Amino acid sequence: MTIYKAPVEDVTFLLNDVFQVDRYNNLTGFSDATADVRAAIFDEAAKLAEQVLHPLNHSGDLEGCTRHDDGSVTTPKGFKEAFKQFADGGWIGLAAPEEYGGQGLPALLSQTVSEFMSSANMAFGMYGGLTQGAMAALLVHGTPEQKKAFVPNMVTGKWTGTMNLTEPQCGTDLGLMRTKAVKQADGTYEITGTKIFISGGEQDLTENIVHLVLARIEGAPAGMKGVSLFVVPKMKINADGSLGGPNGVSCGSIEHKMGIHANSTCVLNFDNAVGDLVGAENKGMEAMFVMMNEARLGVGVQGLSQSEVAYQNAVAYAKDRLQGRSISGVKAPDKPADPIIVHPDVRRTLMSIRAFNEGARALVVWTSLKSDVAHRSDDPKEREAADDHMGLLTPVIKGVLTDQGFANAVAAQQMFGGHGFIVETGVEQFVRDARITMLYEGANGIQALDLVGRKLGRAGGRAITTFFNEVAAFTKENATNEAMKPFIAPLGAAVKDLQQATMWLMQNAMAKPDNAGAASTDYMHLFGLVAIGYMWARMAKVAQDKLAESGEQPYLKSKLVTGRFFMERMLPETALRLSRIQSGADSMMELSAEAF
Amino acid sequence: MTIYKAPVEDVTFLLNDVFQVDRYNNLTGFSDATADVRAAIFDEAAKLAEQVLHPLNHSGDLEGCTRHDDGSVTTPKGFKEAFKQFADGGWIGLAAPEEYGGQGLPALLSQTVSEFMSSANMAFGMYGGLTQGAMAALLVHGTPEQKKAFVPNMVTGKWTGTMNLTEPQCGTDLGLMRTKAVKQADGTYEITGTKIFISGGEQDLTENIVHLVLARIEGAPAGMKGVSLFVVPKMKINADGSLGGPNGVSCGSIEHKMGIHANSTCVLNFDNAVGDLVGAENKGMEAMFVMMNEARLGVGVQGLSQSEVAYQNAVAYAKDRLQGRSISGVKAPDKPADPIIVHPDVRRTLMSIRAFNEGARALVVWTSLKSDVAHRSDDPKEREAADDHMGLLTPVIKGVLTDQGFANAVAAQQMFGGHGFIVETGVEQFVRDARITMLYEGANGIQALDLVGRKLGRAGGRAITTFFNEVAAFTKENATNEAMKPFIAPLGAAVKDLQQATMWLMQNAMAKPDNAGAASTDYMHLFGLVAIGYMWARMAKVAQDKLAESGEQPYLKSKLVTGRFFMERMLPETALRLSRIQSGADSMMELSAEAF
Repeated sequence: MTIYKAPVEDVTFLLNDVFQVDRYNNLTGFSDATADVRAAIFDEAAKLAEQVLHPLNHSGDLEGCTRHDDGSVTTPKGFKEAFKQFADGGWIGLAAPEEYGGQGLPALLSQTVSEFMSSANMAFGMYGGLTQGAMAALLVHGTPEQKKAFVPNMVTGKWTGTMNLTEPQCGTDLGLMRTKAVKQADGTYEITGTKIFISGGEQDLTENIVHLVLARIEGAPAGMKGVSLFVVPKMKINADGSLGGPNGVSCGSIEHKMGIHANSTCVLNFDNAVGDLVGAENKGMEAMFVMMNEARLGVGVQGLSQSEVAYQNAVAYAKDRLQGRSISGVKAPDKPADPIIVHPDVRRTLMSIRAFNEGARALVVWTSLKSDVAHRSDDPKEREAADDHMGLLTPVIKGVLTDQGFANAVAAQQMFGGHGFIVETGVEQFVRDARITMLYEGANGIQALDLVGRKLGRAGGRAITTFFNEVAAFTKENATNEAMKPFIAPLGAAVKDLQQATMWLMQNAMAKPDNAGAASTDYMHLFGLVAIGYMWARMAKVAQDKLAESGEQPYLKSKLVTGRFFMERMLPETALRLSRIQSGADSMMELSAEAF
Repeated sequence: MTIYKAPVEDVTFLLNDVFQVDRYNNLTGFSDATADVRAAIFDEAAKLAEQVLHPLNHSGDLEGCTRHDDGSVTTPKGFKEAFKQFADGGWIGLAAPEEYGGQGLPALLSQTVSEFMSSANMAFGMYGGLTQGAMAALLVHGTPEQKKAFVPNMVTGKWTGTMNLTEPQCGTDLGLMRTKAVKQADGTYEITGTKIFISGGEQDLTENIVHLVLARIEGAPAGMKGVSLFVVPKMKINADGSLGGPNGVSCGSIEHKMGIHANSTCVLNFDNAVGDLVGAENKGMEAMFVMMNEARLGVGVQGLSQSEVAYQNAVAYAKDRLQGRSISGVKAPDKPADPIIVHPDVRRTLMSIRAFNEGARALVVWTSLKSDVAHRSDDPKEREAADDHMGLLTPVIKGVLTDQGFANAVAAQQMFGGHGFIVETGVEQFVRDARITMLYEGANGIQALDLVGRKLGRAGGRAITTFFNEVAAFTKENATNEAMKPFIAPLGAAVKDLQQATMWLMQNAMAKPDNAGAASTDYMHLFGLVAIGYMWARMAKVAQDKLAESGEQPYLKSKLVTGRFFMERMLPETALRLSRIQSGADSMMELSAEAF
């Protein structure tokens, strides 16, 4: 039996103290999200996650989804009722515009509570998460009629949404897509083709599913430039909004997967299914990117979420399991052995996960706040800067939080010894579930290429320059603060490594593009380390100030210890990443393909 | 459908050229193992692994083992026939003494082919591997009667063997053991208690199973000092060697596990089971350590084995899967996209796994050779030095080859994108199977403590001093060799890091033992990097010499490129490990347990 407790105190510290979101009351929805409202939302979300969703996590994994001969899919026991509760609670539309029935609150809040839901039950959380992504694409690129037809029913969770990109022969390279769309006399399109890996592609939670589908219009240019986006509901919709008959889309099979068993991953067959064009012809990739960026941030949060729930269970076990005696002297003389949390190597593991999680959570909050600024600010300059930040940090968050989130789930499992390998213990599920986050929404190698090949150089490197300037301003501001020295000095060294790596790329990737590819993953992780290091420095500053004001506060004390651990033990990895980057592409490209 | 091809060329290079095993013909069994005999053995082992065992790997995982109501267990379809073939081929007794029906060949050969078997089908390989471990304990600590009664039937695979250590309340800390042994009038003991996690504890492959069981004799001292070892056959054995009735041991359940589904992991209930004492009363731990050291080396090989088979499948996929175009220009103009092996980030991943595997394989061969010297040399000094080496390197091989072997399986899975998550693709099994190697036979944190707390300081640090001297002699010998510079320089830097870390431990762990625990895992990995780096330098030297002699040889050319990759990209991790070690225990021990 696994446990989960939502980190309400931590997100409250981040929103209230570190990022002081009350300063953003000029943005739509923010003035409604007062500290009291936020606290109420976090408490409700925590209750739902802990009491409704988490109890279904292990049973959902064991039971999985079942496809029946008629193509219908049953989700695990309890999911339907839980989804109703989740939908009725207004969680899907928390940040959606009020005109479509949403609550119009900051997206930041939605992202923050999504960590709770995902920690509690990642497979469950995906049904709502993908619905939010599909909604976002429709809100940006849909016609007023499309928004009206679909969004309100998605906001309420009456319908869910999906993303249909992958085909057997193309995942990363969507230019190879074959699904075709044929324009009909009435302006609609008939979509035909096979999509794979469609999360929530079929389910028994809702009466309808809104599929967003990439396809190629007859006669469109080859490659990515000939791809368009369509909205294809599972059940057709009548002019009055009521449900019509079934559309030409069916679930051919569901995948047997390593994890997220409770989310149905479908092969969807489109057979002259009726769809509506979303956005302009052949501009499908742009529309899809709206969904994908949203989804990538969400997947990063999933990585963090599995790291967090795995950590909590490892901590509980480490406090409880008696094995051996402390190397520095018996700690529990009344017991046959000490709890394993006395052992430094166990501590090292737990502290490493914890330090990562708290830093990563800050990074997510920071970036989600930028997302609200990018979408809701009146000031174009502010919007641009926030959008730059999103572009730069989204691949980092996706890649780093999932790579490390998975590694952390494995490390947490390690604390259980052999018991960690046993299904009933429950932690091995966190590992299996976390594994998908490194693969979907663009495998992490693609995130690294997106960062190095696209985001870094955009607009003359404007985004990273802003990032460097902000960190430099912070370190300068705190340069003479003695108490901040354990944070500022290591951060300074790490930033220097990132600057050198950036410089190296500028000097070496133009002449030889393989150098960029060879550096990409290490650069992404180097960036992640610096960004999380910066988060820790900011958190430490706030914690120190609050402590000075209000005296002894265990939460703040722990925060500072954990931050120092990150700075001493984890941040210095930047030097290794830099040295790898600087070694270039030669040794990895020298062998011929045949030599492998 | 996964593939596997045994690395015969690589092990041949290691045995013939790098370690020149023909120089050891003074050791029993070595003169029989001529180059021709070795080649024949490798070919036969490869055939068995590739054609018989690997085809059962995925089906075995899917089907798993089944326990029936009467406590009997069925292994997956095909396992019984395959085990007969495996046993009849003489693979279990390859290195066992001829007087017990073994072939008396070097243990080195047995260890080398065990990688093939384990890559092909790890769950299958365990049945034989544990039998070899149990046999080793009986050969060292058993009475002549016990050896005669059990070993010949284990050599032929007529019976298998198991190790019974773990109980629900004790894994690492065997002092907490409760299983009890009561001496009977006839000198035998009645064993009563429950053991868990017993690999191959019940099966339908053989007519009998030889359980080696740790238990506490009535009135024995508390803790580890009161633990004795017993041999408890599943079926009693009559005086004439024929099978008697069932003994009081039964399989209560089989575990549901993350991986190695095809190996039955049993809860074994001992209920007044008749057993024979092995070795002296209360000296069970010593006897068990013979098995455990053997087993730990074997588990290290399992880690390598999953890394290897995962690598081979990732390579095949990377050459086949078309996605995107090379960043340095189109490579396959006749195809809709380039195979993904053109992408540097894919190369980086494949080269990292390969460089680790080849270096780790050398380390295993080197250490297995020392095992033969330790057991078979006439010279006590030579035996002592070899035993030192084994003691020092066994925890390193177990910990590093499994931590990294697992990480490599994950990295290989990553090459498949979303397809890697699908059960039918087959690579996710390598990840799940590899995961156990970090946990069993002493979780890797325990290996690190064994290294730092026990092995390092033993006999005044004699073992590590010998290691440092050997590496220093090699670097000195090649100091002026220009071609060896790319190997000698990084190796020198890495050795310096290891020396500094060792010094730091000597200076800081005495006064504050937590510093040793805090450093242990990083020290183990630092040691592993240096040891593998040394292996690469030695391989490079031999490859260069052979190339100079014989001209163009693709295998040797690839070896040198792969070695350079290791030196440039992977070995520099030693600096990070050192910096972590030097940061000490303070930041990880500061929080109270309640603060977690």
